Amino acid sequence: MIDPTSLTLTDAARAVRDGALRAEALADACLDRIARLNPTLNAFLSVEPEEALAAARTADVEARAGRLRGPLHGVPLAHKDMFYRAGKRCTCGSPTIRGDFRPERTATVLERLDAAGAVTLGTLHMAEFAMGPTGHNAHLGRCRNPWDPDRITGGSSSGSGAAVGGRLAFGSLGSDTGGSVRLPAALCGVVGLKPTQGATPMDGVMPLSESLDCVGPLARSAEDAATLFSVITGRTDVADGIGQGVEGLRLGIPRQFYYDGLDPAVAAALERARAVLERAGARIVEVDIPDHEPYGDLANLVFTPEAAAVHAPWLRERPQDYGPQVRARLLQGLIVPAASYLQAKQLRALHLRAMIDGPFARCDALLVPALRSRVPTAAQTDVGAGPAMAAVVAGVAALTRPVSYLGLPALVTPAGFDPDGMPIAMQLIARPQAEATLLRIADAYERATGWLSRVPQTQVFS
Amino acid sequence: MIDPTSLTLTDAARAVRDGALRAEALADACLDRIARLNPTLNAFLSVEPEEALAAARTADVEARAGRLRGPLHGVPLAHKDMFYRAGKRCTCGSPTIRGDFRPERTATVLERLDAAGAVTLGTLHMAEFAMGPTGHNAHLGRCRNPWDPDRITGGSSSGSGAAVGGRLAFGSLGSDTGGSVRLPAALCGVVGLKPTQGATPMDGVMPLSESLDCVGPLARSAEDAATLFSVITGRTDVADGIGQGVEGLRLGIPRQFYYDGLDPAVAAALERARAVLERAGARIVEVDIPDHEPYGDLANLVFTPEAAAVHAPWLRERPQDYGPQVRARLLQGLIVPAASYLQAKQLRALHLRAMIDGPFARCDALLVPALRSRVPTAAQTDVGAGPAMAAVVAGVAALTRPVSYLGLPALVTPAGFDPDGMPIAMQLIARPQAEATLLRIADAYERATGWLSRVPQTQVFS
Repeated sequence: MIDPTSLTLTDAARAVRDGALRAEALADACLDRIARLNPTLNAFLSVEPEEALAAARTADVEARAGRLRGPLHGVPLAHKDMFYRAGKRCTCGSPTIRGDFRPERTATVLERLDAAGAVTLGTLHMAEFAMGPTGHNAHLGRCRNPWDPDRITGGSSSGSGAAVGGRLAFGSLGSDTGGSVRLPAALCGVVGLKPTQGATPMDGVMPLSESLDCVGPLARSAEDAATLFSVITGRTDVADGIGQGVEGLRLGIPRQFYYDGLDPAVAAALERARAVLERAGARIVEVDIPDHEPYGDLANLVFTPEAAAVHAPWLRERPQDYGPQVRARLLQGLIVPAASYLQAKQLRALHLRAMIDGPFARCDALLVPALRSRVPTAAQTDVGAGPAMAAVVAGVAALTRPVSYLGLPALVTPAGFDPDGMPIAMQLIARPQAEATLLRIADAYERATGWLSRVPQTQVFS
Repeated sequence: MIDPTSLTLTDAARAVRDGALRAEALADACLDRIARLNPTLNAFLSVEPEEALAAARTADVEARAGRLRGPLHGVPLAHKDMFYRAGKRCTCGSPTIRGDFRPERTATVLERLDAAGAVTLGTLHMAEFAMGPTGHNAHLGRCRNPWDPDRITGGSSSGSGAAVGGRLAFGSLGSDTGGSVRLPAALCGVVGLKPTQGATPMDGVMPLSESLDCVGPLARSAEDAATLFSVITGRTDVADGIGQGVEGLRLGIPRQFYYDGLDPAVAAALERARAVLERAGARIVEVDIPDHEPYGDLANLVFTPEAAAVHAPWLRERPQDYGPQVRARLLQGLIVPAASYLQAKQLRALHLRAMIDGPFARCDALLVPALRSRVPTAAQTDVGAGPAMAAVVAGVAALTRPVSYLGLPALVTPAGFDPDGMPIAMQLIARPQAEATLLRIADAYERATGWLSRVPQTQVFS
């Protein structure tokens, strides 16, 4: 018999639906894998085996009676520990400040997953208050990459990347404010979707930067991501492009910014991905894009004061309970003038308009890297709270943060390996609300490359 | 024959509808009055007699053919010079900076008035960029109060107050960010409605402070204001309370803040208004309200940076083109930290909740003054740009600005005269979206006091 954890979410859900597999067997297999691998990965902060198995058994009873709750019936998931569930501890990655926090309400996105039949395995590692693109956490230790534990997972949805990449769960919600879904997906070799700004309900989600925060899925395939995204938004068009191929779609290759200074292995992987998609019928067009250099600073002018405002009471009363990196970044937000913040927000609409009228008038999506370098090691990025920290943060998020500032949807998906066997990702960016186009392209790439058959064989587990 | 300008908007519109008066006669009467009185009042910045008369004649042709455009068919109006009309000059109260500004689009609120049949007489005086609660303008000279030209009109919708109070137009749109509809209405003896935050479309309206800006009507009666407000919002419930009386409504008298330190004439007028409404069937209840003292500072933390961000390019490139008062207030906004701004915005929801769960759980509206003092003279308030200016601004807007911070709807309406014959106003404040309740109470008061028969006899014209 196959290991159930090698299935995609789509196949696992179908197996439960068809009676080919029991939900309890799925939960059992995940819990077994968590027990064996989590001591290495540090992806799960809490595991709830009894609750998960009880929910799975209930799902099995319902399935046998023909009562299927929805497209996730009986499928085990786990999420970044910042989605509120009424009465359940939610650390937000800060056991010092939020160690005793038990929210009164449940996040809408969790309610929708519940209603669709999902089973919850536990809660996942994340950067302290979702601030940090590497997977480091001063209180919780670092989360480890399932392809090589000495490498970073990316952050801030570190546990989501590690748990889905390591096949400890069939899918996961993360949040993305500057790259926090896309970076761990890219570094852990899974699909990550950052939706259009405002596309997902944010109530019951830990706030960080209200103008930039998004909720998005990390999953094993484009189709899995489409299912999760459809459930949390209630949108029915999301999976329309799955299986449709890319015939006639125009993929834009920016002449500026995104391809500057790439590691040769990343450049080669993007070159191969482009060729694969062209053979599959996509038209490749070179496009000019507006000057992206200012977007990083503009994103920071929006991000840091919004985060500082959320944290102001704790910064005042218990600054010692933050890790030094996070405290230093929050304090930066206290000195930004409001007029600068507001101008950065006002310019956003103009810059977005320039993208829509410019490159997106000539193509359906941009095909770019997610990261300029290969997957860094933990040692390379564990640089304390000094000036080097700002450089690491800026470097890791250099290709994801502009998209957050613009509010565009973007998807990262695996695009091969570097010479060390670490995943390389491509990033697809589209106009607002065009998530279905992104998922369609990623799905076509998976089918053309047979990528899915390779995903489960990560180094940790072989 | 009666002077058509002595009619209310409601009666004038009915007369055109019924064929009792021609629209051209209404426009003629207004234009004649403008020609005679505007040199004293300085309410109109521009008058368009030919266009107005042509539009009125078209309205007459349509009316005779039975084709009535809407509830304002053939009624002459004029508005604060900050509502954009495609191709028409719009000074925003700043002939130095916006003297050549010709917008490309027309404000939605103007389009709705046009579609309802209104005739436009010209554009009205306002404070420079709508900043200033007195009616002074360093470039345009000051607008004068129709009850006594030595007194201020209030601002920033100074021309709207003077034109409606002086019967130069049948109604007018103003904007209210901290009291800019309510103060000129109060000081010029007319009805002014500041709607719930977000209730009116703001596109094509000069932005000042996006979190606080509202568009509202100044009019001769509650029913007139209801008609204008209904047209600009498309809401059909607004006039439901007109003619219904106040039987059973609960009017709250705050124990704190609003009645502190009143001029005795103002206190006596409010006492009489209370008695009138009680005799008409309202129940008077004393209520505790949350501490209002911080709201002025919180409003400033929201207002000044938003205004500074809008004006940043001109502050940088042509600071000399601002009047000294306005420049000084805008520069204050440049030093507010973004985190303070954001916290002031976040606290807004909590303070609003405290009002809804507190006093508005015990009453349908609060009955309070609009201004603690009598109508100031021009000399008392023309204090330059030093520290005295901040005190004048804070004092004049002390009872209107907290309502703007909370985002509540409020209405001011005449409540008698002081010993100098100047109008005194009451301010009614209700929970969000309860504009109909405010209009109902003001209408009942007018009917109980016969107020309308007294309005037109202003000192300037007698």
